[in-house]
Amino acid sequence: MQKKRAKTARRSLCPLNASVEMLGDRWSLLILRDMMLRGSRTYKEFLEASLEGIATNILADRLQRLERNGIISAKPDAHDGRKTIYTLTPKGIDLAPALTEMVLWAAKHERVGNQPLIRQMRNNKEGFIAKVVQRLRAAK
Amino acid sequence: MQKKRAKTARRSLCPLNASVEMLGDRWSLLILRDMMLRGSRTYKEFLEASLEGIATNILADRLQRLERNGIISAKPDAHDGRKTIYTLTPKGIDLAPALTEMVLWAAKHERVGNQPLIRQMRNNKEGFIAKVVQRLRAAK
Repeated sequence: MQKKRAKTARRSLCPLNASVEMLGDRWSLLILRDMMLRGSRTYKEFLEASLEGIATNILADRLQRLERNGIISAKPDAHDGRKTIYTLTPKGIDLAPALTEMVLWAAKHERVGNQPLIRQMRNNKEGFIAKVVQRLRAAK
Repeated sequence: MQKKRAKTARRSLCPLNASVEMLGDRWSLLILRDMMLRGSRTYKEFLEASLEGIATNILADRLQRLERNGIISAKPDAHDGRKTIYTLTPKGIDLAPALTEMVLWAAKHERVGNQPLIRQMRNNKEGFIAKVVQRLRAAK
């Protein structure tokens, strides 16, 4: 129901608008980065992995929003029912190329860290994306 | 100076974080879309082209921010000095692949419009990006 409501409330039918309505907020993209590249899967891991110091209320809100938009899924940990495990859905995994292009763009124009990652992406962009996608699919 | 201040204030050195600090706001990306795909160049054109109904104060703020981040440049119209003409810098033009991936992602997973555009991107992504880049460079 949430999904339907979100859809009908869109400000336009433009596909880029659909993307930015789902992702156009810095924290959502940083959470997806932590899932894709660092394998963060729990609330605690997101908080601890966050280089940018995400606030707890923002993290909780963005996880809900990403789930509502079908980008991540949440289920109880099989070993500890009080913990929730978040994984990327196929729709979320499909964001790997967009995130890769954003990293490459910043790496070209700004002074940034994580040069080994950037080298991998530059040397073989398609191969890098394929490897990330394969790892994420296997992790489900 | 603004550029330097923005850089030193970053929350992390992560390249994706650099991107989202510059772009992680829906309106900035929609302004860039209107420049890339519709050739909008003036404040008035941005307001009139905006499918999503951008507010005047937000438009003014985002244009300033994009300029401060070196993504667009502003200069007086040669024919009418009271008008400002905005164009994408080389750094802004380099966003074409990231925006294309975001469009393709939404087109795959959401019900969106502008199918002719999406077909062009799908049929030949690299060719589509190259054509957009070429047009934008020629427009400077």
